[in-house]
Amino acid sequence: MEELVGLREGSSGNPVTLQELWGPCPRIRRRIRGGLEWLKQKLFRVGEDWYFLATLGVLMALISYTMSFTVGRVVRAHKWLYREIGDSHLLRYLSWTVYPMALVSFSSGFSQSITPFSGGSGIPELKTILSGVVLEDYLDIKNFGAKVVGLTCTLASGSTIFLGKVGPFVHLSVMIAAYLGRVRTKTIGESENKSKQNEMLVAAAAVGVATVFAAPFSGVLFSIEVMSSHFSVWDYWRGFFAATCGAFMFRLLAVFNSEQETITSLFKTSFRVDVPFDLPEIFFFVALGAICGVLSCAYLFCQRNFLIFVKTNPLTSKLLATSKPLYSALAALVLASITYPPGVGRFMASRLSMKQHLDTLFDNNSWALITRNSSPPWPAEPDPQNLWFEWYHPRFTIFGTLAFFLVMKFWMLILATTIPMPAGYFMPIFIFGAAAFSGAVTHTVSTALLAFELTGQIVHALPVLMAVLAANAIAQSCQPSFYDGTIIVKKLPYLPWIRGRKISSHRVIVEHFMNCSITTLAKDMPLEEVVKVITSTDKAEYPLEESTESQILVGTVRRAHLLQALQAEPPSWAPGHQVHYLQDILAGGCPMEPVTLQLSPETSLHEAHNLFELLNLQSLFVTARGRAVGTVSWVELKKAISNVTNPPAPK
Amino acid sequence: MEELVGLREGSSGNPVTLQELWGPCPRIRRRIRGGLEWLKQKLFRVGEDWYFLATLGVLMALISYTMSFTVGRVVRAHKWLYREIGDSHLLRYLSWTVYPMALVSFSSGFSQSITPFSGGSGIPELKTILSGVVLEDYLDIKNFGAKVVGLTCTLASGSTIFLGKVGPFVHLSVMIAAYLGRVRTKTIGESENKSKQNEMLVAAAAVGVATVFAAPFSGVLFSIEVMSSHFSVWDYWRGFFAATCGAFMFRLLAVFNSEQETITSLFKTSFRVDVPFDLPEIFFFVALGAICGVLSCAYLFCQRNFLIFVKTNPLTSKLLATSKPLYSALAALVLASITYPPGVGRFMASRLSMKQHLDTLFDNNSWALITRNSSPPWPAEPDPQNLWFEWYHPRFTIFGTLAFFLVMKFWMLILATTIPMPAGYFMPIFIFGAAAFSGAVTHTVSTALLAFELTGQIVHALPVLMAVLAANAIAQSCQPSFYDGTIIVKKLPYLPWIRGRKISSHRVIVEHFMNCSITTLAKDMPLEEVVKVITSTDKAEYPLEESTESQILVGTVRRAHLLQALQAEPPSWAPGHQVHYLQDILAGGCPMEPVTLQLSPETSLHEAHNLFELLNLQSLFVTARGRAVGTVSWVELKKAISNVTNPPAPK
Repeated sequence: MEELVGLREGSSGNPVTLQELWGPCPRIRRRIRGGLEWLKQKLFRVGEDWYFLATLGVLMALISYTMSFTVGRVVRAHKWLYREIGDSHLLRYLSWTVYPMALVSFSSGFSQSITPFSGGSGIPELKTILSGVVLEDYLDIKNFGAKVVGLTCTLASGSTIFLGKVGPFVHLSVMIAAYLGRVRTKTIGESENKSKQNEMLVAAAAVGVATVFAAPFSGVLFSIEVMSSHFSVWDYWRGFFAATCGAFMFRLLAVFNSEQETITSLFKTSFRVDVPFDLPEIFFFVALGAICGVLSCAYLFCQRNFLIFVKTNPLTSKLLATSKPLYSALAALVLASITYPPGVGRFMASRLSMKQHLDTLFDNNSWALITRNSSPPWPAEPDPQNLWFEWYHPRFTIFGTLAFFLVMKFWMLILATTIPMPAGYFMPIFIFGAAAFSGAVTHTVSTALLAFELTGQIVHALPVLMAVLAANAIAQSCQPSFYDGTIIVKKLPYLPWIRGRKISSHRVIVEHFMNCSITTLAKDMPLEEVVKVITSTDKAEYPLEESTESQILVGTVRRAHLLQALQAEPPSWAPGHQVHYLQDILAGGCPMEPVTLQLSPETSLHEAHNLFELLNLQSLFVTARGRAVGTVSWVELKKAISNVTNPPAPK
Repeated sequence: MEELVGLREGSSGNPVTLQELWGPCPRIRRRIRGGLEWLKQKLFRVGEDWYFLATLGVLMALISYTMSFTVGRVVRAHKWLYREIGDSHLLRYLSWTVYPMALVSFSSGFSQSITPFSGGSGIPELKTILSGVVLEDYLDIKNFGAKVVGLTCTLASGSTIFLGKVGPFVHLSVMIAAYLGRVRTKTIGESENKSKQNEMLVAAAAVGVATVFAAPFSGVLFSIEVMSSHFSVWDYWRGFFAATCGAFMFRLLAVFNSEQETITSLFKTSFRVDVPFDLPEIFFFVALGAICGVLSCAYLFCQRNFLIFVKTNPLTSKLLATSKPLYSALAALVLASITYPPGVGRFMASRLSMKQHLDTLFDNNSWALITRNSSPPWPAEPDPQNLWFEWYHPRFTIFGTLAFFLVMKFWMLILATTIPMPAGYFMPIFIFGAAAFSGAVTHTVSTALLAFELTGQIVHALPVLMAVLAANAIAQSCQPSFYDGTIIVKKLPYLPWIRGRKISSHRVIVEHFMNCSITTLAKDMPLEEVVKVITSTDKAEYPLEESTESQILVGTVRRAHLLQALQAEPPSWAPGHQVHYLQDILAGGCPMEPVTLQLSPETSLHEAHNLFELLNLQSLFVTARGRAVGTVSWVELKKAISNVTNPPAPK
């Protein structure tokens, strides 16, 4: 009976094949198949982007883990070499210094020879790209190899050079996302879309941070705070998804490699949960935050000026221009000599790796206790159980070592940031000053959350947050952030914020600051005049008017297209020939682009600024009654903002 | 000598008064005074907004703490009454039910009599306000009193009604911010500014959440996720600052009141830090998340439809329209009868307060252990040391009680949400299903962070985040969020998201969906025609054209202003009189407003959507070559978005 019903259904609806009839329960099987089909469609409908993000996360986790693994091996080899080379001081010194020198000069030489874009952290450039500027080739996949190899070498030189991997990982992740995006558009056969692409890049930045620290929350927030000034909740969710995939995969690999029993926080600490701190301590937290704020201002100031000094000083600039590896090797030699353990490095715990530094930072042994109770001899090599001994010196106290460490690292870090190789600068800053200092240097609040995610304890949420806020308040009112500073030094374009947000700033309108001197073309312009305009100016595109008389804006024409069209029909504007007009070559195929958005002279500065930031614009036309009366670009906005925040003195 | 130098300086620069000269070291004193002056200026320059935010945080903390304190006392009084009233079942039953009935009906009667806006959580309305819609009087300060008193009564009825205070606190906080903003603009004497005001409201929403939970991180993130779809990093920092002030003050009050030894996390738990969970458990976390997602869909579906049912059913709708307190009392009676401890409430731990529920939720006693080891008699009153016994029943196991609790609360919560009084719905959802369920219901990820901040432990970051993401993925693809659902039921205006974000959606442009039938006025229109247009349509404002021929858009005219101007000079358009034109009355003082932003027919749907969301717009004109060719408002955008996300079947 059951079978018959199935058959009847089949004959009325979809035909049932004979084969299906042979099996048991054809109806149920058909339903299951239908359900599976539906599920498949559903998954692929929702999915598309999500699969993309998950792939990205897993890929980045694999790269991050592989790199950590390799770096660990190379560092171990270096330690072995240093230990086994014998007691001769010269040999020891050479083994200590030549190793990082070779690595660093190879890193900078290799990456610079492939592409000049692979140096540095990459975050400043990405910030510029995400705000709408096109930096050609910066996200090209060939940078990828250079950056991976270079970064591995940099990290392998260990705590001598004392640089991290956050920035480059963000850059790597964004490069992969851009590459995957290109692959996808090619396979689907759809045209690439700018805003779609940007969404992916924002998520990719979050993945980059998350895979380094295995901290999805702060990864997403950090990337948002550093990268953009506006963001949509939608992007934030995508970021969370991708970052979680990445962080999960990263920790999973550690478990599979039996480094850890299960997935847990990266660094462990054990504060008391019930009474973690006394009330008056809050005051000290805030004071510490304020001190960090002042220090970070000093750091940012020195760092920026040293960068400028290196670029302008004839000797170093020549060295940097002609032989980057040599400069890198020299810098590495200086750094390695200082950290040589039997020498000055004795007082700086220089035998610890970056990870061990972080371990000791988050460990909460009471320092004073160690100083009082124990005075063991300086061990021949770091004891993995008691890393703290590395900080200990019989004559100096542990606080002396720490103070010395901080003062030395301050300028060593500044020197290290000038080496032109792939490296991250967040990690050393984080080790150097923990949450409040790194928050102040990068102008972010999420560093506090990062500290909690790394330790797995959040009981200190309030005081740490207050310290970070205090540090940020001081740093932000005095200095641009680390990344903005680099953008300024590298002369990349950027759009400043409207700080202060006084009520009076809401009254500034576009008319007050727009650029009124625009060069327009009109459709009824004789071609001779068009040529004159084009040759006398060098804009990338020109606004096009309906007619010279009405001045109604109808679109824009690219200079390149115009030149092409003009060269295609040269006889038309030869003297003695019949005069043609611009509209003739427009009709002849020269493409005209529509103006999708126009400002009015009455638009407020805040509105215009929001538009530029949110839509990643470069410039907009201002129209009044349909006529183009001016343009607003970053240049005008910057000027207007600096006038608002630092009003010119009244005469 | 020193004094003489001081004197000389004084005579050349600012005059030194005689009095100053008498004291020691006039120069140093002057410098100190100058420094203080500079500091004062600096603080006030940076400050203005920050003082405002700090005040807001402290005020909200005070309110939150006072309310918790009062509620605690009232609940204790109820318990005392119930305990002391004697053994008669009737008396006990009455004391159990009448108390919340009286409170709830007073709450709904009192608040509704003052203002109809004080009911509900307020978050849906705030979401609408922040997206640019003007809801008159919703942020009026007179709502404030009604909401505070009503909410106190609601909370005082305790776990019978099982409602929370997050939503109303956000509303209260925003009301205070709006009020403070008005006070400030009045004292400074500057005109109020829309976008400035909105910035403050966003920060205020964060304060509201933060002061309830003393959790600044999740407070800020939750308010961002729920309230808006785009936000600026600047607002996010302001939110952090204000939320930290509020949370700090809230915890400080608890310390001063010697409830706690020091500032610590609100609820304590003690998971193992080193090996918090095994790897395969992750799978169960994700599965749990998926189940929560499905359940939350069911919950949202039932809740929305029950709300609609209550509104459309003749009996209940009449009851709600005429006598709200009666309806509230009836609902409370039903709820209280069910939770009556010697009856069904026996199986639902109904004697615990909301806070105790949360305590037991975060406590991590292994449930199975309790069931096996202990079988004490049911105590006469909850034992504060062993709240878990409340969940225990000799015949049912603890799991039986828990399952019963969940099933009953499911529909009881839905019933409770229909009571028209000030109450929050987040807390019960959070207790009911913890992070994954509440995240799915409200479509947020930050609930995971909230759970960590409340417990002070973040070791479970990855699995909980994965569970929340899984739950969110299911809930978001099936149902609108709790708040969006309420917005739909209450028929408030809202702008949907562009979900899915397929690449094809990036190709839709304004021309495809704009409203082309616009009514325009031209400057050279005879007044008779103007009157005809105005009387035949009822738009709030009309686009104004340069002339009927050129159709160039020059601005807009408000209908109200136009009517006023027309009524002021009635003879001009009387028959037989000389015909006047619209431009005459415009020249006569009828104000014309500029169009600050125009779309083009070629603007993409995404761009237009972003513009509307970021700038809180209601409608925009579309111009082509300066001519007004259409308008785009929420209506058109909604239609276009629904076409993109659910494309109409091809015919």
